[in-house]
Amino acid sequence: MTEPTNTPDTGDAALNERHRVRMERKKAIIDAQIASANKQIGIIIVNTGNGKGKSSSAFGMVARALGHNMKVGVVQFIKGAMATGEEQFLRRFPDEVSFHTMGEGYTWETQNRERDIEKAKLAWEQAKRFLDDPACGLVVLDELNIALKYRYLDVENVINDLLARPPMQHVVITGRGAPPELIAIADTVTDMTVVKHAFKAGIAAQLGTEW
Amino acid sequence: MTEPTNTPDTGDAALNERHRVRMERKKAIIDAQIASANKQIGIIIVNTGNGKGKSSSAFGMVARALGHNMKVGVVQFIKGAMATGEEQFLRRFPDEVSFHTMGEGYTWETQNRERDIEKAKLAWEQAKRFLDDPACGLVVLDELNIALKYRYLDVENVINDLLARPPMQHVVITGRGAPPELIAIADTVTDMTVVKHAFKAGIAAQLGTEW
Repeated sequence: MTEPTNTPDTGDAALNERHRVRMERKKAIIDAQIASANKQIGIIIVNTGNGKGKSSSAFGMVARALGHNMKVGVVQFIKGAMATGEEQFLRRFPDEVSFHTMGEGYTWETQNRERDIEKAKLAWEQAKRFLDDPACGLVVLDELNIALKYRYLDVENVINDLLARPPMQHVVITGRGAPPELIAIADTVTDMTVVKHAFKAGIAAQLGTEW
Repeated sequence: MTEPTNTPDTGDAALNERHRVRMERKKAIIDAQIASANKQIGIIIVNTGNGKGKSSSAFGMVARALGHNMKVGVVQFIKGAMATGEEQFLRRFPDEVSFHTMGEGYTWETQNRERDIEKAKLAWEQAKRFLDDPACGLVVLDELNIALKYRYLDVENVINDLLARPPMQHVVITGRGAPPELIAIADTVTDMTVVKHAFKAGIAAQLGTEW
């Protein structure tokens, strides 16, 4: 019995070689994309949708920015009443992170529209101070979309202030129901889409993952 | 001329009252949901999809967990070669965050499947050490989905190890293309869906938001 010599190699060696060729091609495409994406400019990121990760992603970007020694400004438009883990964590860095919490819990906790509007306007005044400060490399406007959705703030005014910010400053805006006008002027928009959620299965909001 | 007395009030007062009633109803529903969602248990969160925020959301949950003085274990399965801001930031907390980076950049950077498999297996050994440790409150398995997608790791083995972890431990798994078997056993799954992305508009990956 002799070993067959002409059969196609269908074993690991062939699989590994196909993988190498495919990855080489992928690398060439990605490298070309990176080379052509060369604008250095502050961007507006919007995290919207009903799924998890809108605010936590923004706070992950804060950690990223702090790793690069950038100054960060955070305004929480709605969640204020809840002492979240992020807040406790970020308050450890008073020189690097300016943290302003306005509002008092979700709007259905207050049931007072006039007061909500007043709080939202005060929060926007603070946001404008960050948006006027070129030393502030990243501004997080957490749950701003909710304030826009309920028309506590005028979307045109908000957009004008966003577009007038220093050219290298990044802004991350979170919350369900981002208005189309905001999506239109944003650079990167992600819809956090629910595939499944533990809360629906009767699991309470968990320390460390939800709050 | 006398003031009309019977016309419906369509001004601010009526708007505010309608808002109050609607929010009161919403609060009752949410409060009931929170009361019935009372299971206290460690959950598995999967962040998948092609959009932004999968890893940054996981790192935001790390900040949240650290705010509650939880110990955190992080394994990066793919991105290792890149010195991200998160890594630089989280390495400031060696007592609270154990950080392990395996692999050397995205798979298309290496083009060597056998080496990738070896690296992924080593990374899983480290993940198992975290998954065996009840003192570790949160385990982040960053880009694990990629390792599963390329079959560098066996999904059944991975699931068995995940399900055998301490009952109160949370796990966050990120990366495109989460396999259906993993989605089936996860508690919360979010698909980060691209609405628009700055990179497509020729803007480079920006310090502080992308890396």
